[in-house]
Amino acid sequence: MEQKRKELTPFFYPENIAVVGVSSTNLEFGGASFLAKLKESGFAGGLYPINPKAKEIMGLKAFPDLSSLPLTPELAMVCVPARHVPSVLDECSRIGLRHIHILTSGFKETGTAEGIRLEKEIASIAEEKNLFIMGPNCMGPYCPSSGLTAWGAIPGISGPVGIISQSGGITQRLTEYLCFLGVGVDKAVSTGNSTVLNVLDYLEFMAEDPNIKVIALYLEGLSECHHLLPLARKTSLKKPLVLWKGGSSEAGSATAASHTGSMAGKPELWSSFFRQTCSVPVESMDEWADSVIAFSNLSEPRGNGVFLLGGGGGNSVTGSDTCVREGLTVPSLSEKTMSWLRATVPQAGSIAGNPLDDWRVFGDPVYLGQILDQAYRDPAISMVIIDRLIPRKAFHSFDETDPTPRVIDMIKSRPNRKPTVFTVDSEGGDPELAAKGAKMRGQFGNAGIPAFPSLQRAAKALARLQRYHGRKKT
Amino acid sequence: MEQKRKELTPFFYPENIAVVGVSSTNLEFGGASFLAKLKESGFAGGLYPINPKAKEIMGLKAFPDLSSLPLTPELAMVCVPARHVPSVLDECSRIGLRHIHILTSGFKETGTAEGIRLEKEIASIAEEKNLFIMGPNCMGPYCPSSGLTAWGAIPGISGPVGIISQSGGITQRLTEYLCFLGVGVDKAVSTGNSTVLNVLDYLEFMAEDPNIKVIALYLEGLSECHHLLPLARKTSLKKPLVLWKGGSSEAGSATAASHTGSMAGKPELWSSFFRQTCSVPVESMDEWADSVIAFSNLSEPRGNGVFLLGGGGGNSVTGSDTCVREGLTVPSLSEKTMSWLRATVPQAGSIAGNPLDDWRVFGDPVYLGQILDQAYRDPAISMVIIDRLIPRKAFHSFDETDPTPRVIDMIKSRPNRKPTVFTVDSEGGDPELAAKGAKMRGQFGNAGIPAFPSLQRAAKALARLQRYHGRKKT
Repeated sequence: MEQKRKELTPFFYPENIAVVGVSSTNLEFGGASFLAKLKESGFAGGLYPINPKAKEIMGLKAFPDLSSLPLTPELAMVCVPARHVPSVLDECSRIGLRHIHILTSGFKETGTAEGIRLEKEIASIAEEKNLFIMGPNCMGPYCPSSGLTAWGAIPGISGPVGIISQSGGITQRLTEYLCFLGVGVDKAVSTGNSTVLNVLDYLEFMAEDPNIKVIALYLEGLSECHHLLPLARKTSLKKPLVLWKGGSSEAGSATAASHTGSMAGKPELWSSFFRQTCSVPVESMDEWADSVIAFSNLSEPRGNGVFLLGGGGGNSVTGSDTCVREGLTVPSLSEKTMSWLRATVPQAGSIAGNPLDDWRVFGDPVYLGQILDQAYRDPAISMVIIDRLIPRKAFHSFDETDPTPRVIDMIKSRPNRKPTVFTVDSEGGDPELAAKGAKMRGQFGNAGIPAFPSLQRAAKALARLQRYHGRKKT
Repeated sequence: MEQKRKELTPFFYPENIAVVGVSSTNLEFGGASFLAKLKESGFAGGLYPINPKAKEIMGLKAFPDLSSLPLTPELAMVCVPARHVPSVLDECSRIGLRHIHILTSGFKETGTAEGIRLEKEIASIAEEKNLFIMGPNCMGPYCPSSGLTAWGAIPGISGPVGIISQSGGITQRLTEYLCFLGVGVDKAVSTGNSTVLNVLDYLEFMAEDPNIKVIALYLEGLSECHHLLPLARKTSLKKPLVLWKGGSSEAGSATAASHTGSMAGKPELWSSFFRQTCSVPVESMDEWADSVIAFSNLSEPRGNGVFLLGGGGGNSVTGSDTCVREGLTVPSLSEKTMSWLRATVPQAGSIAGNPLDDWRVFGDPVYLGQILDQAYRDPAISMVIIDRLIPRKAFHSFDETDPTPRVIDMIKSRPNRKPTVFTVDSEGGDPELAAKGAKMRGQFGNAGIPAFPSLQRAAKALARLQRYHGRKKT
């Protein structure tokens, strides 16, 4: 284990990086875009663009080849066309550079004889020269704490999440998604064709990484699938492993072969996998992000009883249905809580109980806090959803003060609270509402309080949280 | 049937409206807010506020009671406290006003003896005097084409949808939701406690209404449930009936009793109901809106085979999974289509096939059109999803011209297209992205082209479209 950590660490904390294959003219793609991003994100170490002809690229001294460098970088990012990759690997080995990320695509994922041959050649060079290779056909490593954010549309923030993914696009999307909702990523790796290092290596590494509290894994397929099960079991008992399995359908599985050249495995195999490990299955980007956000912010719930607090009769009825459908319960409250509610909540136009239908909670954080204290004391309640905190009016009326900061302060003043989340209803095509809803979710997220765009998504995330902790114990 | 249409028509096309119980001081609630909304939305008929003391309210002459009016309005909106409602009904009857909407709550839904007694009194007055009553405890009628938009946060647009709902809040939300996505509502009715007129009456009315092509129904419960089945079967064979059943869980059902005082019925009963009718079941606001949008805009698909067109390998893999999970297929393309694609789509970094992974489609509407023409000709394909049309960059780069109008023109130039929808990926907490995504979905929606915020939601909506048309034939 120690060994593995030493071996993979340079991918995330290199002092110097050589970017091999940087165009001096087309700055938007490949090596040039990586280099630009590294500069922009403030990578503190040395950056060495390799280009056979250029003297300088983006204000950095360029070198014709790796052998001309004044030092041996800890990491090479290889962006040359596929046919040139083998010779670059030979050169890496000659200067003692053993950690290599290959961005280039055009290998076995093409299904062509030439692509397959080239990939075999890479594998054999790596074995002979003892090289650690990420990829090819991938976005490589990401680690904002060391300024290593060569990809992604936005600057990264550090946090408790580790991402391992067989799709670069999906990794970027999740990283960005989480960032805006206040959850940082400590390390991410897009694995590509996994010719040398594969998901197992990264998973073993992140399982031991003390910075990483939650692992998000996007997996299409694996040649050594039988090794995954014991590793996933061990890892998921230590920290939540939220797994999005791509290629669960026949059509998806066929596409996976063209994407990363991997065999996705039969669906039955994967349902057995989930039964035998504590891994948390998800089926879309939204579910993946929502679950990671819940696991990053919320403590273990004692049971699956939810207190649902919001406004509107129909909303309360369908909200209960949704919670139950997702595997939660909406239990009756204790007689003590109910007497308090009956004496407090207005009779007409409201419903005292669980769900609680009382519009006053939305504009009055002190009152909301009093109700929450009742719920936190009630033994039937393990989690709380405050559904549609901000009614329509507050979104549109600019005269009114946004109560969100006061609501957040009120929640934070209750450090021993049961897992508590909000939903912000801002869907439906109104751009102004959408922007305000996203901003509000960000405000909550940055305060460590999950806020979801719908009750269905909130309930799904809480149900996964509760199931994970429940299964871990058995 | 003719009779029913005559009986309910005045609720939606009244020439004059009396609003009974309009405060002259608190203008934000009850009758005053209704009156303000009616003025604002440009109701063309006469508006008569009733207030025992005021001479004028909002610039309108006020009257102390209905008997003092110079004429008999076609509709009364009653907003006085519950205990005064019976005497208002007597007064209505005296002046020959038979169509009455009661906003007031505080009846059987409270569960109190007094509330139950008052509701029985209303029922008996209505029977004796032959009154048509909407409510009580409801938002009443909505009909933008006659300027009757007394509720809702936004001005209404007319369109093919009829809404019948046992929740006022949910009705407003759907109306607003659809409006921003280019789908108008012809008539909506929030039914409340349904003391006199109930869901069956409204459904029978809307089934015959030639302006209404799709009916959206939110139903908690019904005392005459056995009448619903034959009516829903007949209606759903004529036009899609998209039904969100509230109270499907025990907790939700108990809440429904407090909300509208109705019995929600056992879940088994409802699954049998859906089997025996052609109604389209949905389980959340998002599903409800997505389905209504699909039914309002898309023609009948010939089968369930989808062509999935987008960018990114992982996205293509998981996109296939999602379509299959929702009940669609992602079939192989014909040899003719494939040869065309193989000759056209770049080999490295793309996948020629179904799904098609080719980023070029996003920036080049002409190229996208050429690909679509191939799909429309392919016998295996019945529907098309263009997934994540606008990549990240286009959202953030203000220099680039938004290709959406050109994409819309291209789609509209193919009037015989197979059902075609877009997804716009703008979730994830970035307020700017959220606003741009919502705006873009609105642009597509206003052109009659559905655009959904995620593939999962697009696939769900298309699967419902296909299942409905498939079942209608059997």
